[in-house]
Amino acid sequence: MRNLDEFTITDEALRRIAATPDTRVKEIMTSLIRHLHDFARDVRLTEPEWLAGILFLTRTGHLCSDVRQEFILLSDTLGLSQLVVAQSHSRPENVSEQTVFGPFHVEGAPKRPSHGSDLAQGVPGEPLYVTAQVVADGHPVAGAEVDTWHADADGFYDVQDEHWSVDKAWLRAAFRTDDDGRFSFKSILPKSYPIPTDGTVGEMLAATNRSPMRPAHIHFKVEKDGFDPLITHVFAEGDEFLDSDAVFGVRGSCIGNYVRHDSGPTPFGDVLEQPFYTLDYRFTLQPVG
Amino acid sequence: MRNLDEFTITDEALRRIAATPDTRVKEIMTSLIRHLHDFARDVRLTEPEWLAGILFLTRTGHLCSDVRQEFILLSDTLGLSQLVVAQSHSRPENVSEQTVFGPFHVEGAPKRPSHGSDLAQGVPGEPLYVTAQVVADGHPVAGAEVDTWHADADGFYDVQDEHWSVDKAWLRAAFRTDDDGRFSFKSILPKSYPIPTDGTVGEMLAATNRSPMRPAHIHFKVEKDGFDPLITHVFAEGDEFLDSDAVFGVRGSCIGNYVRHDSGPTPFGDVLEQPFYTLDYRFTLQPVG
Repeated sequence: MRNLDEFTITDEALRRIAATPDTRVKEIMTSLIRHLHDFARDVRLTEPEWLAGILFLTRTGHLCSDVRQEFILLSDTLGLSQLVVAQSHSRPENVSEQTVFGPFHVEGAPKRPSHGSDLAQGVPGEPLYVTAQVVADGHPVAGAEVDTWHADADGFYDVQDEHWSVDKAWLRAAFRTDDDGRFSFKSILPKSYPIPTDGTVGEMLAATNRSPMRPAHIHFKVEKDGFDPLITHVFAEGDEFLDSDAVFGVRGSCIGNYVRHDSGPTPFGDVLEQPFYTLDYRFTLQPVG
Repeated sequence: MRNLDEFTITDEALRRIAATPDTRVKEIMTSLIRHLHDFARDVRLTEPEWLAGILFLTRTGHLCSDVRQEFILLSDTLGLSQLVVAQSHSRPENVSEQTVFGPFHVEGAPKRPSHGSDLAQGVPGEPLYVTAQVVADGHPVAGAEVDTWHADADGFYDVQDEHWSVDKAWLRAAFRTDDDGRFSFKSILPKSYPIPTDGTVGEMLAATNRSPMRPAHIHFKVEKDGFDPLITHVFAEGDEFLDSDAVFGVRGSCIGNYVRHDSGPTPFGDVLEQPFYTLDYRFTLQPVG
């Protein structure tokens, strides 16, 4: 087929992939080519705009390294990541909802006892005591593996520090729930923060007049055989960015009540003369097969 | 807006870019977000498939350098480049058609006289004599700037050679048409060749069972004030890949007659005792403004 114009080229491109052996690959490539061509026709993309797009993708790729994933951030900020998460985990009522994984999880976080650890390790911030239970069908889930990680008061994760190594991780830990499905830890209150804006995602946000802010949150990953793995955040009720999260991650069942106390007894049994926060939260898993 | 699901997230993403100051940026981003989301929903993209896509784009970006542009090659092989070219240059009948620019043009090619140069400079191949005229509205276009470049008999362009530099370029030159709109040169016969398959585009072609072959061709860029710049190829009548060009670039008006001669007088006035080829071609420009 020759003499292709901007309309006939789509059928020809689909004819070229007709012999794709993997039916799923064929299904995905067919939809991708159709939407890519429709997009370019719909907006009558010009040659300079096409080149700007090529160079944007190239710069995005060059920003990706072992410690930075600008394509994931681009997917997050275009709403693609949360869309894929949502359609991959339709949850019944009363089961904790999934949200975006984000780029800051690491494998092999330090294992801590089920109760009593301080994850702050001296990082400055307002004290926070988290008490949590993992349940399913109204019963405690003992022995669940829990990963947690969150940003400091300035919005930075430990892995963004050039001196970081996994053995001295901070604001990050792995737990196992006790016989009553519970775990608890002390840390510092997370704050809202901007996603990195010094790359191509920052260019895109600026060009579209968008905020880079994410509401304050703590990440949790909860896994136990027999249950759908749960990857979620616990956001803070009242945060000003709950309705404008730059990565579209906020879901109603993922908002916790971070309670401020002027002073007094903490969930750990000690008594503080300074203000502190508590968060008591319940994660509900979905049994599978 | 919170509690976004895989359907409501699209309207929310569009609401976020509502204040985009540049109306063209807003138009493009609106269509991009709609098609990106529709694609992911249409195929019910899974989390592992999403991650495979992220890593494919990342590897594609890492392959891009000063001498390689894998994103352009990806756009070419998905039919996007030719689609954008086609809708950017709708030509009246009898005007030479545009096709893809490709990644191998360089600025500043060596200037040669209008007639008589040998571009092969010793590169082995079958001798080819090209005689051409540039016209518009039936009249010769004198003083047009012509760039030409093509691959060697093994399918490689000079810029793919690690010892290349622009001052010693081969199979590449810049001309100016004479008073009768003509130029001519000697070179070697171009051959069909595969596009580079050692990167992510090669992965895509293999996964979709596609050929990487391009039909033999010579690139031409013809420019003169008062005329729409022409970027095109001259393909060879009878080439077995004319209907399956990996980058969808073949157009009927871009096929030339490369004539084989067993021996005899050449267009340059000398006489060869060995086989050689001739190509006589006419480029028709479109006046603008």
